Amino acid sequence: MREPGRTKLPQFLESTDPGFEAQFQALLTMKREDSPDVDAVVAQIIADVRARGDAAVIELTQRFDRLALTPQSLAFTPEEIAAHCAAAPSEERAALDLAAERIRAYHARQMPQDADWVDESGARLGWRWTPVEAAGLYVPGGLASYPSSVLMNAIPAQVAGVDRLAICVPTPDGVVNPLVIYAAHLAGVSEIYRIGGAQAIAALAYGTQTIAPVDKITGPGNAFVAAAKRRVFGKVGIDMIAGPSEILVIADGGGDPDWVAIDLLSQAEHDESAQSILITDDAGFGQRVAEAVERRLETLERREIAGASWRDFGAVITVRDLDEAADLSNRIAPEHLELCIAQPREFAAKIRHAGAIFLGSWTPEAIGDYVGGPNHVLPTARSARFSSGLSVMDFIKRTTLAEMTPAALRAIGPAAETLARSESLEAHGLSVTARLERLNDGDL
Amino acid sequence: MREPGRTKLPQFLESTDPGFEAQFQALLTMKREDSPDVDAVVAQIIADVRARGDAAVIELTQRFDRLALTPQSLAFTPEEIAAHCAAAPSEERAALDLAAERIRAYHARQMPQDADWVDESGARLGWRWTPVEAAGLYVPGGLASYPSSVLMNAIPAQVAGVDRLAICVPTPDGVVNPLVIYAAHLAGVSEIYRIGGAQAIAALAYGTQTIAPVDKITGPGNAFVAAAKRRVFGKVGIDMIAGPSEILVIADGGGDPDWVAIDLLSQAEHDESAQSILITDDAGFGQRVAEAVERRLETLERREIAGASWRDFGAVITVRDLDEAADLSNRIAPEHLELCIAQPREFAAKIRHAGAIFLGSWTPEAIGDYVGGPNHVLPTARSARFSSGLSVMDFIKRTTLAEMTPAALRAIGPAAETLARSESLEAHGLSVTARLERLNDGDL
Repeated sequence: MREPGRTKLPQFLESTDPGFEAQFQALLTMKREDSPDVDAVVAQIIADVRARGDAAVIELTQRFDRLALTPQSLAFTPEEIAAHCAAAPSEERAALDLAAERIRAYHARQMPQDADWVDESGARLGWRWTPVEAAGLYVPGGLASYPSSVLMNAIPAQVAGVDRLAICVPTPDGVVNPLVIYAAHLAGVSEIYRIGGAQAIAALAYGTQTIAPVDKITGPGNAFVAAAKRRVFGKVGIDMIAGPSEILVIADGGGDPDWVAIDLLSQAEHDESAQSILITDDAGFGQRVAEAVERRLETLERREIAGASWRDFGAVITVRDLDEAADLSNRIAPEHLELCIAQPREFAAKIRHAGAIFLGSWTPEAIGDYVGGPNHVLPTARSARFSSGLSVMDFIKRTTLAEMTPAALRAIGPAAETLARSESLEAHGLSVTARLERLNDGDL
Repeated sequence: MREPGRTKLPQFLESTDPGFEAQFQALLTMKREDSPDVDAVVAQIIADVRARGDAAVIELTQRFDRLALTPQSLAFTPEEIAAHCAAAPSEERAALDLAAERIRAYHARQMPQDADWVDESGARLGWRWTPVEAAGLYVPGGLASYPSSVLMNAIPAQVAGVDRLAICVPTPDGVVNPLVIYAAHLAGVSEIYRIGGAQAIAALAYGTQTIAPVDKITGPGNAFVAAAKRRVFGKVGIDMIAGPSEILVIADGGGDPDWVAIDLLSQAEHDESAQSILITDDAGFGQRVAEAVERRLETLERREIAGASWRDFGAVITVRDLDEAADLSNRIAPEHLELCIAQPREFAAKIRHAGAIFLGSWTPEAIGDYVGGPNHVLPTARSARFSSGLSVMDFIKRTTLAEMTPAALRAIGPAAETLARSESLEAHGLSVTARLERLNDGDL
């Protein structure tokens, strides 16, 4: 059961209104998504795949996707991949080529440096980054089967140096999106399974007779996929559990109300639970944007979805000035923040919590969804307060390094002995003491 | 009920043995820890703290810690903190000072750089790192109340620039470890609550009348704390859920068997579920280490714990050569890897999965627990395959930046329009189209 927030909250808010703080709090804590409790079903599916492997995956795919598979047809063959790639329209292929190139260039800059130094005690310290060996990428089937998401998940893994990338994408009734296959191919992925749901996550995490297990699983999915990812977390790494999409546009009165209206709708059209908010210091501009939204909603293909999202969760907030807009933005910690203002760069310096910032009126958020370069997998539901979008960092990990010399151990070892004693960890202390005794014996 | 692995597995393994692969697999997948199912109790505690705030926290502290608190005495006062700091013995204080200084110097090097560049399309791209605003650190009470863990959790947060740090440490029957308070003070933390368990995690995540909520929670704890952290994940960020400690020592025949024995025992003494493994290319050396372990176990203070861990989960593996040792080590992906061999630096280059590496015989793992500089909060249970130890990165997050010019939008916008159309996201495409039309109208 969906509980529209609009029953409690007006669409237009003004920060000078005495009731504003309460309204803004309601906006912040508004429950936009139902989480159907699928955990028991998912636990059973995972147990079944662990116990019976391929046979369980095949049965569940028959049941949920109405598709008859064998262990041999779980994966696309190289010939099938080539045929789907050839079937992808050339204009879309060229667009994906450009997107892949730009995403790769952006993420290549994210690779962090190793470090190695000798400190004043003589201790050699540092760290080293190494890639995850195998990653699994989940791609939803049906309407939300986005080739752009394949690029956004697979390219950071590829740039990180992951050896093996496996994709799971369900193909209900056998329907394949050739652009998804082409995007996988572009990102160097040749291991693609036509399975989905919790059974696909279980197969990636625990392996089957046909599918080798991976170390990390990323990618969006429905409630079953999300619950399965939560359950296998620990056995493998996972990325975030993404909620419905959000955009916050901050605009002064100088822009085009219609541009802002479409930008708000470009999130609203994703999902009835999506949220689009405008903050402006010009009440008249806010009014014109709202009118433009209604006009655009008359003809938009996904007007039912976008309209429901805007009615239930959309808001136009008028503030005294842009400083107040920055404060409210930091409290919202939006997934996407668009700055349609005269001096966006100066203003951006005031923003502390946001997944991605789009600066200036020439930067619609949709550019970031496809070809900008930065990742479009971003923290939702205010989690930009403590987390980041997907990046190369999700596919590498750090090993710290320490190497003592006898002199270094003599310098810092006694403090370790003292602390080990105070924590009642005798062997910890003895491991230092035995070595220091050797030094004091004059062997070295 | 504990299920000792030793019933199935010998303590001495040889890689040349035909049964070795099966034995090694058993060692890898050995269940060492019971996870008591406390989830229902924890869910209730969290709901209670959310509903009743301070009153619930105070009641639960009375019940579990036999300690009567009021909202006013939930936190240590500045005077109490000063008194506990003064009560800490001076030798321990000096040791913590040295540890804090070295941990701070190491972690200061971890701060990543912001980035900002203009690409060939004219698009300005980049990212910016910002600190989490408020972090909560959990410190267990009783025996496992380690001041060193306070430093390892609080200093990275402090280095990251976190504005507010709150510590929760239970004080059962009112017993306070003054070194924990001193360590908090050293790390700049003055907000310390004498509460623990799931109720402390709930208070940090959701806030009470007295305790402001935080954005990120880190620190070790018992099954209740771990279950509570899993439950509040999403509302706040959490660090890893740590399992029992582990060490893998790789040794050639050239070292001192007694040193290696103590190093193995320094993990074993943590916990009956800890695991200590030696891999050596010298069977005789392995035998001598095992004998030294038995000798040390005769007198070790925590011999019951360490002995149980060694008997149930310890192992000595003889391999053909050190290359084979590196392969096995990468399959184990140990939390701690100690290299007691002649050329540790060259060998370390072959290691892909390990939380921390200690190079050479002069670097006992215990140095890393206290004063080495690297963090001692490290991935356990083979999760070094996909995750890293605690660092400054856990307390900062990345905001990506993109700023188009009209020329950049003209160059890359059409590809975004194409991809939006192919994903049936019309408003995404229109947000680009509306701007490109303006450009084509010749307004600019």
